[in-house]
Amino acid sequence: MIKHALSVTREADFAAWYQSVISEADLAEESGVRGCMVIRPWGYGIWERIQRLLDDRIKATGHENCYFPLFIPLSYFEKEAEHVDGFAKEMAVVTHHRLIADGNGGLTPDPSAKLEEPLVVRPTSETVIGTAFARWVQSWRDLPVLINQWANVVRWEMRTRMFLRTAEFLWQEGHTAHATADEAREETLKMLEVYREFAQGCLALPVVAGEKPENERFPGAVATYSIEAMMQDGKALQAGTSHFLGTNFAHAQNIRFQNAEGELDYANTTSWGVSTRMIGGVIMTHGDDDGLRVPPRIAPWQVVIVPMLRDNDEDAAIVDYCKALQADLAKQMALGEPIRALLDLKPAKAATKRWGWVKKGAPIVIEVGGRDVAGGNVSVIRRTALYREDGKLNSAILPRDAFVGEAAAMLEAIQGDLFEQAETRMKAAIAPIDDWADIERMFAETGGRPGWADVRWSKPTGEALEKVVERLKALKLTIRNAPLGQTGTDTGACIFTGEPAVERVLIGRSY
Amino acid sequence: MIKHALSVTREADFAAWYQSVISEADLAEESGVRGCMVIRPWGYGIWERIQRLLDDRIKATGHENCYFPLFIPLSYFEKEAEHVDGFAKEMAVVTHHRLIADGNGGLTPDPSAKLEEPLVVRPTSETVIGTAFARWVQSWRDLPVLINQWANVVRWEMRTRMFLRTAEFLWQEGHTAHATADEAREETLKMLEVYREFAQGCLALPVVAGEKPENERFPGAVATYSIEAMMQDGKALQAGTSHFLGTNFAHAQNIRFQNAEGELDYANTTSWGVSTRMIGGVIMTHGDDDGLRVPPRIAPWQVVIVPMLRDNDEDAAIVDYCKALQADLAKQMALGEPIRALLDLKPAKAATKRWGWVKKGAPIVIEVGGRDVAGGNVSVIRRTALYREDGKLNSAILPRDAFVGEAAAMLEAIQGDLFEQAETRMKAAIAPIDDWADIERMFAETGGRPGWADVRWSKPTGEALEKVVERLKALKLTIRNAPLGQTGTDTGACIFTGEPAVERVLIGRSY
Repeated sequence: MIKHALSVTREADFAAWYQSVISEADLAEESGVRGCMVIRPWGYGIWERIQRLLDDRIKATGHENCYFPLFIPLSYFEKEAEHVDGFAKEMAVVTHHRLIADGNGGLTPDPSAKLEEPLVVRPTSETVIGTAFARWVQSWRDLPVLINQWANVVRWEMRTRMFLRTAEFLWQEGHTAHATADEAREETLKMLEVYREFAQGCLALPVVAGEKPENERFPGAVATYSIEAMMQDGKALQAGTSHFLGTNFAHAQNIRFQNAEGELDYANTTSWGVSTRMIGGVIMTHGDDDGLRVPPRIAPWQVVIVPMLRDNDEDAAIVDYCKALQADLAKQMALGEPIRALLDLKPAKAATKRWGWVKKGAPIVIEVGGRDVAGGNVSVIRRTALYREDGKLNSAILPRDAFVGEAAAMLEAIQGDLFEQAETRMKAAIAPIDDWADIERMFAETGGRPGWADVRWSKPTGEALEKVVERLKALKLTIRNAPLGQTGTDTGACIFTGEPAVERVLIGRSY
Repeated sequence: MIKHALSVTREADFAAWYQSVISEADLAEESGVRGCMVIRPWGYGIWERIQRLLDDRIKATGHENCYFPLFIPLSYFEKEAEHVDGFAKEMAVVTHHRLIADGNGGLTPDPSAKLEEPLVVRPTSETVIGTAFARWVQSWRDLPVLINQWANVVRWEMRTRMFLRTAEFLWQEGHTAHATADEAREETLKMLEVYREFAQGCLALPVVAGEKPENERFPGAVATYSIEAMMQDGKALQAGTSHFLGTNFAHAQNIRFQNAEGELDYANTTSWGVSTRMIGGVIMTHGDDDGLRVPPRIAPWQVVIVPMLRDNDEDAAIVDYCKALQADLAKQMALGEPIRALLDLKPAKAATKRWGWVKKGAPIVIEVGGRDVAGGNVSVIRRTALYREDGKLNSAILPRDAFVGEAAAMLEAIQGDLFEQAETRMKAAIAPIDDWADIERMFAETGGRPGWADVRWSKPTGEALEKVVERLKALKLTIRNAPLGQTGTDTGACIFTGEPAVERVLIGRSY
């Protein structure tokens, strides 16, 4: 019987386990500000790795970064009625620009400093970026415009959960304008593919890329695509979206250009984004009952060296040995980058530090004591193989040089193992289903973790779609997406309407 | 007589020239949101380079990045009375969390969604980070806490100027807590030195590091230090600050720890920051009448290749030649990094593109036409040597391979030249002055660009200091700082009080 590092298991209470990982791995904490979290160094370090790796991909596909204002005048939202509907209920509104003493020792907004036009803290930047596009785009020569922004955004959520749904969150939002609808559609799918490859290759998150149903579209979009990841409780997490906006935003914001024939055309636009929510997906995909397991590509530190010091004369030799080890590791390349090795010299007991790094999910933890120095060894703990068969900690003594030589391969194996475990689990939890009755059976048990159903549908619209949505809602289900790459040869009846199906969609519970 | 690329010169109208560089170099533009700018790709690319280079230095000195909430509850400010005084007049206040239809087709803040406690958009994060420190710091073992945040902040400025003073700006803010005042003072000066080295080594900005006078301290600080750069109009730009906060914030926020003797002590804290304002400093230090000149270390693209295409059969060969050149340049290391080379294939005339890159300040612009391909040559324009003696564009034809071999040295020379030019100018414009009458003479001419006076003073405090400040204010002057490294052997009379001086300070006009 293994005694795990966390006091709550995934099996016993998945939601409590999730909060426990965030707290025990020092990822984030409540800030005292409603719905906003403090992202602590280990959590922010993971975000920095995500930013670096994804930013490289965004730039490699021809996009440039810009920065647009945090505040958006109310009137910008009024222009785009459909867009407003989607966000109107949950925006932070700045109404004053000064505070004054309230006469009771406190402060209050100065009534004489009320803004003529309230400012909205951006929930997303289509309106303000579209306004800039209208200035930038005059001729077909100015197209395409391919830009991206890394920023904080605010949506006033009633129920918040760290990383998954917070009032303020960090994200990137890509915005592009094109001369034709075809080019804009191609861009939308290109960035979806960038997200898919990034999620699988860097986060080790298996995902299904597909098109969202009409009712789940981004407000104002012609088509919305997503990558959907499966958490260990079987629920879906929408981990990234890419929207083809057609000329809807261009009409609202007057993004027009003179085409090669000298006529005025509306541009076709796209937008696409991923956020700190991805970190929630990493936790719920790779975490275990000992805490987080961070895929090496996004681990701020891939190898953590913990010296076992005893406040005696041997200590200096141990620290020197560890420093040389750290330097040699930093010269090795793993997964295309120099290995990121940390020597943890904080004043705490070695065992406390070891378990701290296990809970944080550092891929490899090295312990070095006097005996290791004498023997030219290191004690190696791999986060993905923490326990031996007898339930004891699996700490392997390896010759120091052999470990340095193998470290890169070990990190690459851990990256691969995490993806493979998650992919096997996801595949096993997607069930092809032909009858509605089987859907009800599959999702009936309240305590179960049923995964997703893979069903045929006739892609109804309007009222017929609303009926489908209601029927699913009764079981707390939603259509996640219609996976890309369907050949159209899979024929049969729609599970909802009985009419001839046009494609397959995935159905599940979600975050 | 050279015909320069900008229509306004530094000599004719420095302020108009500054705006012209920002616009012609595509650095930033007005956003339509009061006091907020859009930072365009070239401007944001410079900021990304600044971030990368400074972040490396912040991490190398042991700091970790975190993220804290954008919103700060009003009550946090009420705790720190002195701090509030410094910022109270200029904060954006969120009072509502929902918009509703106003009945006239518009939107309005929902009266039923008024926040119980207004939220302030952070003008700086001492209060919210201090609250976190109070949670994190329990024992001496938890110290020092060394963190940094890259974030947007908002200060409601009445008069704004792009990059120099905007309502929203981007910055980094370091915050640290220490067991002793000595350690905190050491940290304050260490980060000031990081800023000094970074400004000089990366931005090619000569700066004077020193302590601000009491009246210029950050609200709540025990001591404030700055780096001051001199613009081409002789004015000072405070380009970075580092504050020793003593236990002032620790008292307000209850940051206490058990020391090694088991007693409760207040922590000593520091904070330090630089912002997008630095880009304004780069413009006003290195810009000329043809636009910006970007120091190679912070240039998003160091070498820009412009193919001279003629819409004929030769074009493909020219583009291939340029691609191979770009690839070979990317293999060279300059200033410790691979050379960043761009091939500009946008649909525009070569001459338009050339002048576009000159105005943007790319360090080296290469033009390649059919004749260059035939001869195995490239035409090289160095941004720091744009014209020949006869006033014509200085475009040198070099053998292609010779250029590739020399490109790194050329970039390093440009980086060095920019610093040297600016340093020579600054040194020549600092005048040691002993008499107040000479100060009046120096700063009397309204049209002149007098630089700074270097004077002795007795470091008065309280009312005596206020008098000095008033006297300077009448001439639109301020004390910039007391340069570090003074030996104390330079004795004489205070230029203000006539009393024995204790140090020298720099006096000048400023942004």
